[in-house]
Amino acid sequence: MSSLTTTVKAMVFDTFGSVVDWRGSITRDLTRWGQENGFEADWTAFAVKWRSMYQPSMEAVRSGKRPFTILDVLHRESLEVLIKEFGLEAMTEAQRVHVNKVWHRLDGWPDAVGGLTRLKSKYIIAPLSNGNISLLTDIAKYTGLPWDLNLSTEVFRCYKPQPQSYLGVCAALQLEPGEVMMCAAHNDDLLAARNVGLKTAFWPRPTEHGPGQTTNLVAAHDWDIVARDIRDLATQMGV
Amino acid sequence: MSSLTTTVKAMVFDTFGSVVDWRGSITRDLTRWGQENGFEADWTAFAVKWRSMYQPSMEAVRSGKRPFTILDVLHRESLEVLIKEFGLEAMTEAQRVHVNKVWHRLDGWPDAVGGLTRLKSKYIIAPLSNGNISLLTDIAKYTGLPWDLNLSTEVFRCYKPQPQSYLGVCAALQLEPGEVMMCAAHNDDLLAARNVGLKTAFWPRPTEHGPGQTTNLVAAHDWDIVARDIRDLATQMGV
Repeated sequence: MSSLTTTVKAMVFDTFGSVVDWRGSITRDLTRWGQENGFEADWTAFAVKWRSMYQPSMEAVRSGKRPFTILDVLHRESLEVLIKEFGLEAMTEAQRVHVNKVWHRLDGWPDAVGGLTRLKSKYIIAPLSNGNISLLTDIAKYTGLPWDLNLSTEVFRCYKPQPQSYLGVCAALQLEPGEVMMCAAHNDDLLAARNVGLKTAFWPRPTEHGPGQTTNLVAAHDWDIVARDIRDLATQMGV
Repeated sequence: MSSLTTTVKAMVFDTFGSVVDWRGSITRDLTRWGQENGFEADWTAFAVKWRSMYQPSMEAVRSGKRPFTILDVLHRESLEVLIKEFGLEAMTEAQRVHVNKVWHRLDGWPDAVGGLTRLKSKYIIAPLSNGNISLLTDIAKYTGLPWDLNLSTEVFRCYKPQPQSYLGVCAALQLEPGEVMMCAAHNDDLLAARNVGLKTAFWPRPTEHGPGQTTNLVAAHDWDIVARDIRDLATQMGV
């Protein structure tokens, strides 16, 4: 492990699910908002369904069928489908804007701020997320994530797991791929990063999708680091 | 002033000269480095000459004669000229790389960290600088600037004062120009920002270029805020 702590200069983090708890946060936020505004729904099911539209919504951009479009816009398009499905058509435009921005109001997992603060003392830390720049900026302010900089894939006009996401980060930081560690609770993100030479760190988020989760419960490959959470990652990285 | 403190959501800062003291920092850094490595020069004159090549070096990019090229590369090209001029040809390649990176090791003016920390409690704060992403990241780590995100013009593939620098920031943050304040010790930067609708804040750095400085000693226009320094800017912005 000691060579990692001297080789790695920057650690970049998947955000949704890995650093912040989108399912719990959206459920809490929209439950309260629904009560205050007279909308009733199974907000957990609503959050899970919304998230399930995330990967398909980016596919048109990744395949080149559609010009680069920021995630806020893709979220809004999915929201319109959900509103019909959940019978929430009474929402005004202003309410839809507010609900869509729930993705800017996500709480970190309990270990996120503490673990990242320790890592920042030695490494450059940044989100490498498909969330757009303003979304990631708002989350960081909202929940107190101490990023050094914001490496939204919006900067590189692409979406993970496209290789230019990971290589764009290395170029922007003027680092070799082996000096950058991709950190995530998702094996597929790490595999794409490793394929272009980045170091990798994994920790599980076994309730990201709820109690019945079946994916990403364990490390699927021999990642450079397998940790319990971001605090443990900090310990293993020597801070 | 009270309407500014409710309208403005993000404050973006010119960095070289406005937030960090390039002349003093380079003089200190290279004087020590020269003593340790056997190179003698008037390092203040060296710093001032280097900086004087800054605007001309970006002009080929701004005019479209040259594809977007990051500032580290432009700095290096200027350095090669300076090395000849100052008779420092004995520098090895590794030494030239180290010296060129002096722009990544700049100290903040004494009010910078304190003032920015206060502003961050209410506003999104970021550098909007022609420094490239890694340069600005390194400066922030080196001197402790608490940016929320890094809005190097490298993100927008242009150089200030091109309008797309300022408008790119507004688009990335999903804010109207009137919700973003350009903050600088340089009147021309503020004028370009105001021309596309941003709010403006000025404070002087009367020794940025040394004791004989004749430019930017006072506000040349009726900027939204004229402050003594970044601490005073924080006070005027209500934090």
